[in-house]
Amino acid sequence: MNYSDMSHIELIAELEKQRKIYESYLDKKLNLNMARGKPGADQLEISVDMQVDVSSPFAEDGTDCRNYGLLDGIPEAKRLFGTILEAPSENVIVCGNSSLNLMFDTIARSMIFGSYKGATPWCKQEKIKFLCPVPGYDRHFAITETFGIEMINIPMTPEGPDMDLVEKYVENDSTVKGIWCVPKYSNPDGYTYSDETVRRFANLKPAADDFRIFWDNAYVVHDLYDEGDKLLSIYDEAKKAGNENIFIMFASTSKVTFPGSGISAIVSGKENIEFIKSILTVQTIGFDKMNMLRHVEFLKDFDSLKAHMKRHAEILRPKFETVLDAFESELSCLPNTRWTRPRGGYFITLYLDKNCASRTFELCKKAGVTLTNAGATFPYGKDPDDSVLRIAPTFPPVDELKVAVAVLVCAAKIATLEKLV
Amino acid sequence: MNYSDMSHIELIAELEKQRKIYESYLDKKLNLNMARGKPGADQLEISVDMQVDVSSPFAEDGTDCRNYGLLDGIPEAKRLFGTILEAPSENVIVCGNSSLNLMFDTIARSMIFGSYKGATPWCKQEKIKFLCPVPGYDRHFAITETFGIEMINIPMTPEGPDMDLVEKYVENDSTVKGIWCVPKYSNPDGYTYSDETVRRFANLKPAADDFRIFWDNAYVVHDLYDEGDKLLSIYDEAKKAGNENIFIMFASTSKVTFPGSGISAIVSGKENIEFIKSILTVQTIGFDKMNMLRHVEFLKDFDSLKAHMKRHAEILRPKFETVLDAFESELSCLPNTRWTRPRGGYFITLYLDKNCASRTFELCKKAGVTLTNAGATFPYGKDPDDSVLRIAPTFPPVDELKVAVAVLVCAAKIATLEKLV
Repeated sequence: MNYSDMSHIELIAELEKQRKIYESYLDKKLNLNMARGKPGADQLEISVDMQVDVSSPFAEDGTDCRNYGLLDGIPEAKRLFGTILEAPSENVIVCGNSSLNLMFDTIARSMIFGSYKGATPWCKQEKIKFLCPVPGYDRHFAITETFGIEMINIPMTPEGPDMDLVEKYVENDSTVKGIWCVPKYSNPDGYTYSDETVRRFANLKPAADDFRIFWDNAYVVHDLYDEGDKLLSIYDEAKKAGNENIFIMFASTSKVTFPGSGISAIVSGKENIEFIKSILTVQTIGFDKMNMLRHVEFLKDFDSLKAHMKRHAEILRPKFETVLDAFESELSCLPNTRWTRPRGGYFITLYLDKNCASRTFELCKKAGVTLTNAGATFPYGKDPDDSVLRIAPTFPPVDELKVAVAVLVCAAKIATLEKLV
Repeated sequence: MNYSDMSHIELIAELEKQRKIYESYLDKKLNLNMARGKPGADQLEISVDMQVDVSSPFAEDGTDCRNYGLLDGIPEAKRLFGTILEAPSENVIVCGNSSLNLMFDTIARSMIFGSYKGATPWCKQEKIKFLCPVPGYDRHFAITETFGIEMINIPMTPEGPDMDLVEKYVENDSTVKGIWCVPKYSNPDGYTYSDETVRRFANLKPAADDFRIFWDNAYVVHDLYDEGDKLLSIYDEAKKAGNENIFIMFASTSKVTFPGSGISAIVSGKENIEFIKSILTVQTIGFDKMNMLRHVEFLKDFDSLKAHMKRHAEILRPKFETVLDAFESELSCLPNTRWTRPRGGYFITLYLDKNCASRTFELCKKAGVTLTNAGATFPYGKDPDDSVLRIAPTFPPVDELKVAVAVLVCAAKIATLEKLV
């Protein structure tokens, strides 16, 4: 029976019932974690062959990958990322372990040197603003906050960010210099931007000529089902629009091979890539080429990479379904409560009734179940409705996950009931 | 016979003789390179066992190095660098492939966030100056130049930079925020700072509280002979002086294992390390831990690392001696000409008579021998005397090196003779 249809007495009885269940969890002294978008131990095992010796230390152009050289990566790694990210090799720079580092550096570079050759550095401009589709990725927001960039919430929809609002800001406010996007299986909703959304991004005519779209393609090959979501190529669309420097794309193999030992890439228009390289050549001697070689040798080509990703999907699907099944059977009775059903990525978003997220988080915490902080998916950690919880089902084994979700649904019920009674 | 003692006629005859020798080199259509501080192919082979699979992907604290975690590196890698760099593990952060990247990032961080928590960012200060011991490392100077930092030349001596001048600037000019140091086997002289120099650095009382010594310990274990130069521990001396945050040390395994696939480290005082980590946690998810594991497993401990470095020395010593022997036998007759005799590191510096370096460089280039650009070892590429050439003997095999040096000494003679006649 839906909680909205219950009488006050029924609600109190239900709350009492749920509190008893909750107490039984407290007795169990659990220590479970659904907070981090972290692959499980079994996912690491499927890339174990990548650890072995490469067959030869030479790249296809003859470069000895053990020595200095090749600032922008070995040709075969550039090609592989180019195929995955749908852009020519020459528009790719292959870098080190963390794509987040590339995003941070891109903002640091814009702060100090400007967004393009000859642009006014952001640190010399009075005000810098970023658009932040919400809910979004907490680490994106942490970067912009650290740099003192003002963040503006943009509501997310299953089609992507509210593009009317995006266009309004970008095309009229020259202090708006960027927008954080996770276009495929967005963090945390798991939404994939529609074709129209991608086209509208590609055709933006910013008021600021140093505005860039930060296109974090973190889950580009991270489908849970054979039929993955299709994301239009931002490179192709931007090029068609004569606007190929509007975006900077980021990606990595963190959730393809090893989060602790992967490679990453930047993709952008020719002018951006040249500008980035002009600074990069001062910044570093080069990124780890042996690891690039290891990756290309292990992942081979796009087809074998897709086959590899299916092995991840086989591990992850039951975890996502464990959470979704529990939500379906247990939370359908809660008013104003919904959740996303992603077909890829690393997260599910649970939308609770207003003012119920923090309370649910706290109840889970007390029972030994760690969730991502309520509010974390919003700039400054402030969820205006206090309704959003990011669920990360990937790390715990299924049996632990079942317990963690049972605690979560119980906590969500209590929080909602406390509000209703 | 020394050129200074020759008559005009003798000088003309000698010049003619050298020009004939030079022409014979032109006929050979050489293509040789003594420009880059790059290990030779045979040096890469001695680390080949590092490429094989690690015995276990777990760090000693149980961390799965394939997954997320450990921002500042695995404990065993921190300990190894701590031992080498003579500082406690907790004062070490282990990072990715390029220590240059750490230096760039340290300056970028100071530009945007300041040198310590609460400091005024350099980009908000009117003028930022760096002291640059000369000759020095071109890539250091490229970083400071790129950031628009004014560079001040400080003469090098066999004891280190002219400390009277360093103290005068640092202790009186609050716009002086840093100094570039390569304290052991300096690039390009190969000088090691004396105990007194290190102590004076450790005891600096800067006018600017956001002044830092950039201590690039690139050649800390890179001895050519069994008895290496001894460098006093800047950490110990700074700590004794109650000044442990005065320096930030950088190092890497680029010339220990693989330049294209190494690990690097920062060492500094507690406050600096905490400040760096507070930004780093926003900047990156973490550095490649599998590569740290690979390194520790291969290098083991300081003793076995020193044994490993002896194998490098065996390869490098004949190369240095090839150059030094040729200089000794061929250039002793040139007026105002001298060269350094390093006991480690990657370079030899040749000091020619005034206004002879560019000409020698050009003559070499025309004969197919690439040297580091004349002037490259000075800020803005400007050697005021045009007398310094950096010689990098490590990359070419000895037989090629012999030819390259023969061309170089011939070119140096011609340049000097042209000036004399």
